Amino acid sequence: MINVGIVGYGNLGKGVHIAVNKAKDMNLVGIFTRRNKNDVKPIYDCAVYGIDELKEFKGKIDVLLVCGGSATDLPNMTADLLKDFNTVDSFDTHAKIPEYFAKLDKVAKENKTLSAISIGWDPGMFSLARMLFGAVLPDGNDYTFWGKGVSQGHSDAIRRIKGVKNAIQYTIPREDALEKVRKGLNPVLTTREKHLRECFVVAEDGADKSLIEEQIKNMPNYFADYDTTVHFITEEELKKEHSKLSHGGFVLRSGKTSEENSHILELSLKLDSNPQFTGSVLLSYARAVYKLSKEGKVGAITVFDIPLSYLSDKTGEELRSSLL
Amino acid sequence: MINVGIVGYGNLGKGVHIAVNKAKDMNLVGIFTRRNKNDVKPIYDCAVYGIDELKEFKGKIDVLLVCGGSATDLPNMTADLLKDFNTVDSFDTHAKIPEYFAKLDKVAKENKTLSAISIGWDPGMFSLARMLFGAVLPDGNDYTFWGKGVSQGHSDAIRRIKGVKNAIQYTIPREDALEKVRKGLNPVLTTREKHLRECFVVAEDGADKSLIEEQIKNMPNYFADYDTTVHFITEEELKKEHSKLSHGGFVLRSGKTSEENSHILELSLKLDSNPQFTGSVLLSYARAVYKLSKEGKVGAITVFDIPLSYLSDKTGEELRSSLL
Repeated sequence: MINVGIVGYGNLGKGVHIAVNKAKDMNLVGIFTRRNKNDVKPIYDCAVYGIDELKEFKGKIDVLLVCGGSATDLPNMTADLLKDFNTVDSFDTHAKIPEYFAKLDKVAKENKTLSAISIGWDPGMFSLARMLFGAVLPDGNDYTFWGKGVSQGHSDAIRRIKGVKNAIQYTIPREDALEKVRKGLNPVLTTREKHLRECFVVAEDGADKSLIEEQIKNMPNYFADYDTTVHFITEEELKKEHSKLSHGGFVLRSGKTSEENSHILELSLKLDSNPQFTGSVLLSYARAVYKLSKEGKVGAITVFDIPLSYLSDKTGEELRSSLL
Repeated sequence: MINVGIVGYGNLGKGVHIAVNKAKDMNLVGIFTRRNKNDVKPIYDCAVYGIDELKEFKGKIDVLLVCGGSATDLPNMTADLLKDFNTVDSFDTHAKIPEYFAKLDKVAKENKTLSAISIGWDPGMFSLARMLFGAVLPDGNDYTFWGKGVSQGHSDAIRRIKGVKNAIQYTIPREDALEKVRKGLNPVLTTREKHLRECFVVAEDGADKSLIEEQIKNMPNYFADYDTTVHFITEEELKKEHSKLSHGGFVLRSGKTSEENSHILELSLKLDSNPQFTGSVLLSYARAVYKLSKEGKVGAITVFDIPLSYLSDKTGEELRSSLL
């Protein structure tokens, strides 16, 4: 049995909990929180500890699944945890990955631990697709589309507007752009041509809706470069129709091996629950970290460094006879 | 530079030649053939040798790309080549892969060489998708659809019928079945419900076309379990309309993380030229074999055992900053 711990119990931590509850080769030692541990209600029966109690579990947990946010939690938290434990996290600030990797690689090597960073579906599975597609079809172009799905950052940005009580923002890939790529036309696409942004907003009583709409549509970086639609709805409608954290997307590569012969490679994901699926991905990589760590591997690693067989609880023979 | 050799110069060997011609980190030492070497006309300028001359290149070729057929060529040929060289091949008789793996693993370990077997898109990229999808979404069902594409085996079967001069057979995935899977309905699909078979047949003068059609449609294993359509065309039409070796297919996994939340994962390939694309995949795995062999790895390996970063000519830093 692989002994794992969950650090952080928000949506992602709960997703990991659901996944570990189904895994036959895993034992969940505990949930570790920075909140008051009595306030955490696990969805399945499980011990909850304060994060300061983690030190007592050194040597008793094979891998920690670190379920914090990339902006403020992970950069310092994971480095600290790595002094005593192997870790898996979902660090997803793409631009800062090299810096994050270097930092964790140093700490992990100093402490002879192993850290799989930026695990999930993007970064994660989408990165694998971009890597594999580019290697097998070097002469071509990459396209990544996201959605339809909720963007937490954009929803938050709307909520900060005066007069807005609540809001959900969907990122939607443009079908016409997707079709151009699938046809092998190799289009050069602007930001506006790739995605639409659809907003569902609950306004406060008496708020100026047209002013809110204008402020959303003209918000630099977040909305100004996109075709954005804004719908005003009630709090009840928002709860009823827009509470699923669905997401997904597409990675495509369009390229050619010779003048006459073009090829289209595509990975697509359609996810009802982003945190539950991401939690499930994290857990399979926790298995890989466990196995690689047993082989003596230390440092920081990414999806690019891990043979896929390490994600599975099946033997090499089983994989070759059933999946190859 | 990685020194490679191509063994066998049919469609696949030519596909590899096109790929190696574009690779900046590869040097093609020669093409090795069992035919009369004067009969082989390389598509780019390159030395051609008889396969018996290969022994002289021991130590001068890092990886051999073995481009023979799975039925008769590869089983003995690759085992023999492995005594002196590292190899990559596209062995694709799924049912015999475990036996083939065991045989090559033994020879490779005895001779301290490395052999990547069953490389291409299925087995190969499709196997990776089945493996990855199953690991990250354990509670679900797998579906593989092939086509639209030419099945060489089925085309050959038609050509053996009396009165048939030439024939091409396309395997076509059924759109209705694909849609059911994409909707998450988890259908149980019979052979007939997954694929259609479409045949283009050139009959000899005076042949009984209705008899030919009947023989095709009732042929056990090949056609009897499918909805098959047969079109009679002229030799000229066949050459003009049906000479591209296009292929492709779909790997889907439909599963759930909880009662409420389902997910659909899909990889699809649309290939203008099956042999050119497969050749390009083989070449990227030759790069991985070279790197792993330099690290001292010996034995037989499959796509499951190889970290994807080994397929690329980019450094880990470049991959992390550009693709993760």
